[in-house]
Amino acid sequence: MPIRILCAPDKFKQACSADEAARAMADGVRRAAPGADIRVLPLADGGEGTLEVLREVFPQRKQVPTCDARGRKVTAAIAFSDDGTRALVESAQACGLWRLDEGERNPLETETRGVGQLIAAALDAGAREIMLGLGGSATCDGGAGMLHALGAKFYSDAEIVPTGGTLKDLRRVDLSGIDKRLQSVQLIALCDVTSPMIGPNSATRRYTVQKGGSTRMIHKLEQNLDRLVKCAAKAGVLATGLEPGSGAAGGLGYGAMLLGGQLQAGAATVLELIGFEKQMAGVDLVLTGEGSYDEQTAEGKLVAALGQACGKARVPLVVLAGAARPVNVEGVTAAFSVNIPGARKQDNLNATLESLRRHAAAVVRLMNR
Amino acid sequence: MPIRILCAPDKFKQACSADEAARAMADGVRRAAPGADIRVLPLADGGEGTLEVLREVFPQRKQVPTCDARGRKVTAAIAFSDDGTRALVESAQACGLWRLDEGERNPLETETRGVGQLIAAALDAGAREIMLGLGGSATCDGGAGMLHALGAKFYSDAEIVPTGGTLKDLRRVDLSGIDKRLQSVQLIALCDVTSPMIGPNSATRRYTVQKGGSTRMIHKLEQNLDRLVKCAAKAGVLATGLEPGSGAAGGLGYGAMLLGGQLQAGAATVLELIGFEKQMAGVDLVLTGEGSYDEQTAEGKLVAALGQACGKARVPLVVLAGAARPVNVEGVTAAFSVNIPGARKQDNLNATLESLRRHAAAVVRLMNR
Repeated sequence: MPIRILCAPDKFKQACSADEAARAMADGVRRAAPGADIRVLPLADGGEGTLEVLREVFPQRKQVPTCDARGRKVTAAIAFSDDGTRALVESAQACGLWRLDEGERNPLETETRGVGQLIAAALDAGAREIMLGLGGSATCDGGAGMLHALGAKFYSDAEIVPTGGTLKDLRRVDLSGIDKRLQSVQLIALCDVTSPMIGPNSATRRYTVQKGGSTRMIHKLEQNLDRLVKCAAKAGVLATGLEPGSGAAGGLGYGAMLLGGQLQAGAATVLELIGFEKQMAGVDLVLTGEGSYDEQTAEGKLVAALGQACGKARVPLVVLAGAARPVNVEGVTAAFSVNIPGARKQDNLNATLESLRRHAAAVVRLMNR
Repeated sequence: MPIRILCAPDKFKQACSADEAARAMADGVRRAAPGADIRVLPLADGGEGTLEVLREVFPQRKQVPTCDARGRKVTAAIAFSDDGTRALVESAQACGLWRLDEGERNPLETETRGVGQLIAAALDAGAREIMLGLGGSATCDGGAGMLHALGAKFYSDAEIVPTGGTLKDLRRVDLSGIDKRLQSVQLIALCDVTSPMIGPNSATRRYTVQKGGSTRMIHKLEQNLDRLVKCAAKAGVLATGLEPGSGAAGGLGYGAMLLGGQLQAGAATVLELIGFEKQMAGVDLVLTGEGSYDEQTAEGKLVAALGQACGKARVPLVVLAGAARPVNVEGVTAAFSVNIPGARKQDNLNATLESLRRHAAAVVRLMNR
């Protein structure tokens, strides 16, 4: 019987998409075992790429007008189940970091208004359940922009347009105007991280620099988000911004709670939606990968969710990462770095793909000896 | 039957010895397969560490006075077979780069006189066959210092003491005074590289910078070595400095030829001396490693010699390298980088050893699934 291998990577940030990585892995497996039974299953954790990865669950697409994290008009896709009752909104389609040039990245200035517009479009289309994929955002506004677009009002002395920076003047929040349709819709936020929005382990501290912010900016943003939480509390909100996942996508997790949404672990939910257990049945190896396999992986990134599933099913799981740090993640049989230590530029697409092919082939040769 | 694994790495330059690497690999194998049948066989290519690795073939040691590449008095070991008829001289014990601080490294100023003194000591002890391990030298003097110590004379107008730099004034070489005992002794030079001493692919061009030289120094050294070859030719020498391996240890390969020595590939000779084929018999996997697995590996470094042996015997060979570049080496089943891409300092001993353990365990888990 030929060896059966499931190639199921996450995206490699700044190098390749999950789909490109999965196909490179499959090519590599084929080099080492031409007769192998290979399945390709690109994955995502609720962040960037989730829409693409869940194509079979949400096959219908609608292009709608929205705006990016700097407020510029863009067109973005939202996805629906075949019967139209369930919608998938990927926040990165609107306020994603990928839409901004390096010079445009500044979490004090960016906003999530576009995410609110995408949710409104899903409501307009009649969705009864909305999955909101969180991750890969260029923002740190606690979801205030999204709330604003859906009818919330933010005031200092006068009304303000909320961004990560303008929240510093916030005195009062009025949530009474939020779109009433949301009351009868199930909103589920898929969080790509478990970090809270505020507090000593906040997403703000961890990810502001990735979003183009300076370390000095972190303190300002923390103060602004504290202010948002306090004002919302005065308006009757119970959420504290300390909930695990509330820090996802610069606090869009927290914002989603203010819309009545539930926070869920993005990776685990994607695996469930995609029917991972069934896809994995009978395979001899799951090959996965991500840009960086590190301490954060163990804290609930996609590879950790795969580890749980594979560990339970006793299927070997091998991680091919851009860089693999020496961490232990339950259910991971082996993890290898595919980038070359000491080489200068590592985010070259072709080099990463070829290295994925080589490493996939090497792993299969070892298993197939 | 337990899995049988031979841990047979080269040294990891600037990180750990072959012995340390082999024991770390064995520890890692044990983690993944506590019942494994593990053999440890540190290897070398004729360069630094060869004396240690061939301890069973040359178990007798003698400490003798010699000098380092800067002419300072040091004590170094030479090794003998139990019957005393065969000696092993490791050139790096005298003129090795490891003996010099960074500021002392300068191939224009360094010399190989100490190697000649070690050979003289082996002759004094009555050896009938001398193996001269070449590699890891801090020098680029074409072996002139070694020849000088054994009785050759070098002249400009007056006699000169040859170093990489003083050869620029060389006008005449007199080889008539070379120790006559060498005529009845078999001298075998184990070369760690196949590069010639001069010409477009010379070892001088490749390795001068590793020895602490500047790129500007390369041209000077090439001219000086050309001059040495021309003067030696006038004295009746047939060697041209273009012979493969003549560039080993800054031209000590060439110098050895002037002593009547034969050049041999160091790695293959070490494998033969150590009885590698026999050691490998019946194992399921050979784990090897080296600091850098790259284009030079394919050109005849130790791992390539292992690849030939393992390929012939159809034993899987896995390379755990500090950094593994995407090269194809015959007989190598898989090659992995153990250093972490993007991490700053990679030559930390403990980090390298722990990463070797982790990777050895990972490989065995894959094979043992």
